[in-house]
Amino acid sequence: MSSLLPNGAEVMSYSDAAQKSDIIIIAIHREHYDFLTELTEVLNGKILVDVSNNLKINHLISEEVNYYITPSSINKKRINTNLIVLTQVLICGNDSKAKQRVMDVVRSLGLTPLDKGSLVAANEIENYPLQLFPMWKFPFYLSAVLCVFFFFYCVIREVIYPYVHEKRDRTFRLPISIPNRVFPIAALTLLALVYLPGVIAAILQLYRGTKYRRFPDWLDHWMLCRKQLGLIALGFAFLHVLYTLVIPIRYYVRWTLNNRTVTQAITKKENPFSTTTSWLSDSYVALGMLGFFLFVLLGITSLPSVSNTVNWREFRFVQSKLGYLTLILCTAHTLVYGGKRFLNPSNLVWYLPSAYVIALIIPCTVLVIKFILILPCIDKTLMRIRQGWERNPKYSESALNGKTDI
Amino acid sequence: MSSLLPNGAEVMSYSDAAQKSDIIIIAIHREHYDFLTELTEVLNGKILVDVSNNLKINHLISEEVNYYITPSSINKKRINTNLIVLTQVLICGNDSKAKQRVMDVVRSLGLTPLDKGSLVAANEIENYPLQLFPMWKFPFYLSAVLCVFFFFYCVIREVIYPYVHEKRDRTFRLPISIPNRVFPIAALTLLALVYLPGVIAAILQLYRGTKYRRFPDWLDHWMLCRKQLGLIALGFAFLHVLYTLVIPIRYYVRWTLNNRTVTQAITKKENPFSTTTSWLSDSYVALGMLGFFLFVLLGITSLPSVSNTVNWREFRFVQSKLGYLTLILCTAHTLVYGGKRFLNPSNLVWYLPSAYVIALIIPCTVLVIKFILILPCIDKTLMRIRQGWERNPKYSESALNGKTDI
Amino acid sequence: MSSLLPNGAEVMSYSDAAQKSDIIIIAIHREHYDFLTELTEVLNGKILVDVSNNLKINHLISEEVNYYITPSSINKKRINTNLIVLTQVLICGNDSKAKQRVMDVVRSLGLTPLDKGSLVAANEIENYPLQLFPMWKFPFYLSAVLCVFFFFYCVIREVIYPYVHEKRDRTFRLPISIPNRVFPIAALTLLALVYLPGVIAAILQLYRGTKYRRFPDWLDHWMLCRKQLGLIALGFAFLHVLYTLVIPIRYYVRWTLNNRTVTQAITKKENPFSTTTSWLSDSYVALGMLGFFLFVLLGITSLPSVSNTVNWREFRFVQSKLGYLTLILCTAHTLVYGGKRFLNPSNLVWYLPSAYVIALIIPCTVLVIKFILILPCIDKTLMRIRQGWERNPKYSESALNGKTDI
Repeated sequence: MSSLLPNGAEVMSYSDAAQKSDIIIIAIHREHYDFLTELTEVLNGKILVDVSNNLKINHLISEEVNYYITPSSINKKRINTNLIVLTQVLICGNDSKAKQRVMDVVRSLGLTPLDKGSLVAANEIENYPLQLFPMWKFPFYLSAVLCVFFFFYCVIREVIYPYVHEKRDRTFRLPISIPNRVFPIAALTLLALVYLPGVIAAILQLYRGTKYRRFPDWLDHWMLCRKQLGLIALGFAFLHVLYTLVIPIRYYVRWTLNNRTVTQAITKKENPFSTTTSWLSDSYVALGMLGFFLFVLLGITSLPSVSNTVNWREFRFVQSKLGYLTLILCTAHTLVYGGKRFLNPSNLVWYLPSAYVIALIIPCTVLVIKFILILPCIDKTLMRIRQGWERNPKYSESALNGKTDI
Repeated sequence: MSSLLPNGAEVMSYSDAAQKSDIIIIAIHREHYDFLTELTEVLNGKILVDVSNNLKINHLISEEVNYYITPSSINKKRINTNLIVLTQVLICGNDSKAKQRVMDVVRSLGLTPLDKGSLVAANEIENYPLQLFPMWKFPFYLSAVLCVFFFFYCVIREVIYPYVHEKRDRTFRLPISIPNRVFPIAALTLLALVYLPGVIAAILQLYRGTKYRRFPDWLDHWMLCRKQLGLIALGFAFLHVLYTLVIPIRYYVRWTLNNRTVTQAITKKENPFSTTTSWLSDSYVALGMLGFFLFVLLGITSLPSVSNTVNWREFRFVQSKLGYLTLILCTAHTLVYGGKRFLNPSNLVWYLPSAYVIALIIPCTVLVIKFILILPCIDKTLMRIRQGWERNPKYSESALNGKTDI
Repeated sequence: MSSLLPNGAEVMSYSDAAQKSDIIIIAIHREHYDFLTELTEVLNGKILVDVSNNLKINHLISEEVNYYITPSSINKKRINTNLIVLTQVLICGNDSKAKQRVMDVVRSLGLTPLDKGSLVAANEIENYPLQLFPMWKFPFYLSAVLCVFFFFYCVIREVIYPYVHEKRDRTFRLPISIPNRVFPIAALTLLALVYLPGVIAAILQLYRGTKYRRFPDWLDHWMLCRKQLGLIALGFAFLHVLYTLVIPIRYYVRWTLNNRTVTQAITKKENPFSTTTSWLSDSYVALGMLGFFLFVLLGITSLPSVSNTVNWREFRFVQSKLGYLTLILCTAHTLVYGGKRFLNPSNLVWYLPSAYVIALIIPCTVLVIKFILILPCIDKTLMRIRQGWERNPKYSESALNGKTDI
């Protein structure tokens, strides 16, 4: 029998084992917890560590355990742990001395214990590892829909239209050219959607004349996932930068440039330098690069370890002031990119405007409304509302009774 | 009356409310704290949470509070919290049990409590959110001055000079070409300024023959903001990389290359391949890329969460050894970029040398002095001084009397 | 005498000093600890802070100290601190009240105290700052060997061979072209080596029919440094991206393109557009960029502060699912890069195939084995083994007796 076990391990009955140790680690499935009821007397005063993990989200175990382990003396010392990311162990418990001893044991195993408060928090921790990026769901689906829509929009304009009208095969635009239209559009739209809910909230507060009424649920949820929207937008911006920098090493681009030069040399045509074109081209590239630089800065400050080291004034400064500056630069980048062609009817293909024209709608709307909101007269009213002033206290009273009208 | 309140809320007198609860959260302006004096008896032994935020930096509130809340039994349990970055709550308090309970409450609200020690620290925490990047001020203004100076320096050489002498419009250089001269210069100068104070400190210690005398204040302050200087330098290096990679898609560059090729094709001139030019061009590009790569590494290790996981030997290795290697690579990149043209008098414009020649002064100085300092004989003396040895103990004695001579 | 000291400092005998203070900080070398034995009576009940740092790794000091400071009342309150990264102070101690007081002192000095448990942990902490990146050693040497090998391999094929056969000087390929072959090969190989141990472990478990036998030591060590291997691979991928994006501004590339265009213009040869070439060229570039994007995502999630905010399911999803997707994209990038030339015998130089063909061996092997392992029948068996099922319990019994046969 003993040959089954590693050196130093002993096999004994439940009660003997419980009697012999101070710290008891329970590592069996919760279906088999019944035997604990028989041991209540022996367990009295011992530290009980429950390392079982919850497998279904709504399987509220802590109540069960309260049922099985009745004596409060034991329950008081029950400690719930949960292995996270291989090296961190979250620990809950009501008795701080017992917790201290368990944390020492965890440390001696080379792991980092993290005190997560009393047993009240244990239930939350147990459910914690079972959700997969819950805050990322809405931003992820939204950006997937945006990408698919604009991809097919561009395919219609740039691949199907030339094929139908001129029988030209333009499918070679699929791997890089068309994604490089979709990525900046998705980035700009998502970035604008980060700042849209704040603007809507301000309008709602101005309209209601009070800050004491709750926002609708969709607005609350939208405001909570702004960081995720912004990070996905940064991802698209990064891809746009990569796809743009790679342009001059593409076969198609090299062939086009080479062909144009050869034709020019053979026909001996002149190609005068245009200072305006140079200004326009350099300006939109420079605006884009500065916008991307600020965007990367925003992304870095949203890293948990960085945002923990800045205070709220700094955080608000970076996320609000720098964020709006990024939005302004990226919108200007798109506007100057359009340049003279912008809204030119000759750009319409099957009555469809260029994709970047559509991409400009939301950012421009956000910027215009924001510009109106920071006009001194409106900004003053908004500030007063946010400091607690109410235009119509009676109105807000009825709202607290649950009569919302939006 | 009750219709004004959300479900579950009750309205009662101060003393009733205080008597009924264990934890009392005070969320009113500090001007109205007077009523607390009347409640001292009821508050005895309760946990008092003060969530008010300081609004002026030098408004030393803790003393006021000591005045209002006299009984030590209350004061002992007063806990100061401060909401940071929306999810972290800094908590100060002398009574650890009371603190534990408040931390549980904070956790149940979905926030992360951070134990910041006893009430002594409360005052510091209250002033914390009111400063905007205090350590970044000097590096920010310095880099702004550097950028403006070198921008106008390059404008004089590359836009005004050709206009005055040849009536040529070169303003198209403003959006990209000239910034792409300013950014690398600012990056290299700021990077050198990160290592200059360490070199000055070593010279001071060698000159004084002791490490027991304080450095002048400006040197202390400079040494404290080296990380910020380095990160701003990294920002400029990142912009320089972006502005450089974008070169081949610029209209001006494409036009120039196209024009040159067409002329060559028409005149049928030969353009022999020069191995030396290829070596020089590739070397300075490779040096720059390796330098940028190490620079990014330095930036990543200066992230709080990364620098917390390395030990001080690793941190010193990365920040000192890798840092100097980065400085050497970036200086070499600039030197090889200059190549044969370097210090060529034909490059002088209105007696002004190229901007990058000026940019090389500080980094080369730092590297030469550092090279002298690590010569065995000097390094040995410096090591002994840093381990506590003094060349002239009497001299240091007079210094401790306050007679500094620098 | 007093002129030697800063204001507020006092000089007194050991016992007087010990008697006068509650917290005693010992900042002398451990060779001089003898005097503490004389003070045992005075030190009784005081908090003793030992700030000395260990200088040799196996200099087990805590035992010495137990010898010198015999009374348990003192020893109980001894607190060991260790300065890390200039702002964090690790603190060990058995008495939590004493620890609390020392943490307050540390905080008042502007440093962040980190509670590292009881004195048992002190020894580990003292040795902590003396190792230089211990987990990085194997990945670092492995990647150095890979780089040197592939560098000389490419030099033989691309510099020495043309020189020997055609007397052509191709040394200008050394600074950028050849490194840009070595970096992607190193990146892809190291990325594959991140996933190889997991595949080997699965095969071992399937062969043994149990998860209860330990893996060989080399496999254990390999699995522990997968993160480091992956980060070094990311570094090489980053360099590959930089070295690739820089291609169009290289003198050699510009000269080649210019020369080709001039020749074409003079001879008036046509250069028809090939849709297939465009597809192949754009596809491998797009695959590479998407692979690099996912690789950067993997790198960001491995930052300590980010990986702490995701739960284990999210971490496993990112590191396993996204990791394999990255490996697939990067392998496909290399395969499509080879394109039609792949395994073409005309590419052999002195019987040596192109370097990227060798680079594909490990990633393709890993992907093929992984593909076999996730076939439903094999995956089911593996899952059962990992949940504790054993094919041959007797076999595993003998193994526990120490008779391993691998």
